[in-house]
Amino acid sequence: MERICGHTYDEFLELARRFHGYPAPGLVAGGFMVDLALHNLPSGILFDAIAETDSCLPDAIQMLTPCTVGNGWLKVLDLGRYAICLYDKYEGSGVRVFADPARFERWPEVKTWLLKLKPKSEQDSALLLDQLREAGGDLFGVTPVRIRQHLLAKRSKGSITLCPACGEPFPARDGARCRGCGDETPYETKPAGAPDAVRLPTTSERT
Amino acid sequence: MERICGHTYDEFLELARRFHGYPAPGLVAGGFMVDLALHNLPSGILFDAIAETDSCLPDAIQMLTPCTVGNGWLKVLDLGRYAICLYDKYEGSGVRVFADPARFERWPEVKTWLLKLKPKSEQDSALLLDQLREAGGDLFGVTPVRIRQHLLAKRSKGSITLCPACGEPFPARDGARCRGCGDETPYETKPAGAPDAVRLPTTSERT
Repeated sequence: MERICGHTYDEFLELARRFHGYPAPGLVAGGFMVDLALHNLPSGILFDAIAETDSCLPDAIQMLTPCTVGNGWLKVLDLGRYAICLYDKYEGSGVRVFADPARFERWPEVKTWLLKLKPKSEQDSALLLDQLREAGGDLFGVTPVRIRQHLLAKRSKGSITLCPACGEPFPARDGARCRGCGDETPYETKPAGAPDAVRLPTTSERT
Repeated sequence: MERICGHTYDEFLELARRFHGYPAPGLVAGGFMVDLALHNLPSGILFDAIAETDSCLPDAIQMLTPCTVGNGWLKVLDLGRYAICLYDKYEGSGVRVFADPARFERWPEVKTWLLKLKPKSEQDSALLLDQLREAGGDLFGVTPVRIRQHLLAKRSKGSITLCPACGEPFPARDGARCRGCGDETPYETKPAGAPDAVRLPTTSERT
């Protein structure tokens, strides 16, 4: 395949470096997957996207389509499968592109990488990228799908209230206090008796 | 504040249009938040990021830092708070920037928007953007945090196996079959007796 969503292969690698930090094999594969999905989607529709893993594929979608995590048009699901889906955001009909093991045999280094047959340090990354480029979209299956109805509904946070624990705004539907003040917090709590966190200077205080 | 991570305000709006589709208020606020976090982080460290909501803020981080969802340096948590955190990826020390209601009073349209005091259709978006620009980083609190140890560990998928149901590769630790073949699937299952999904032509079959 010569082009990835209108970009030459080298242009795509450069985009990958800029957005993702480096041209990861998963992102290169993802580029071909998005290209394949777009070719199989009716043109002119408004589509949303699903990535079935959080590794690499969300970035291919974000680089090559209008769908991002922050605008809500891309959902990242933790299904562990190397697959993406683009679908009509109103109707829910779309196409799913997935890693198809039956197609790996011709590309042994790709097979080794996707099925993790060797530790990463023993894989040949140059050969892998060569094979990914050569294989292009041929590594992937494409199948029509229909998205479940509840995923099509527009999400709303409902009303906002202030958390009695941290004082910050949060969706009232989450309960008596915000989810950040419960077990889900990613932050260490300070030991009992420790002083309150120092508030660092903000913009106008700095200037 | 004149600049957002080195970009003029208008340059940032243009970046927002290109990546996010439009200069959403949440993304403009997010730009100031990322700028504020970076100013309070020691320079030269390798940092990872957390967005405490999936609305807008992940995109501000992805546009302005090397951290993306797909490269794993950005975690998007569903805590419902309008906050981000950048932290030393090895040590876990970092800064959290959060919407601070005590600071909203000077910016009534920002307050109306963040606390959803009126339906969106009754909010004044032009005034909101003006106030966001004027307020810049002053809407946000900044506090030092430490990330919980288990979030610093490098995630590994472990070994990969083929799902007996769909035939696709998935992390063996997920169980007997992949998570996409269980209740978590986003796709409608076809009614009993319906024909198998047609496989659409892939690249080499199209050309």
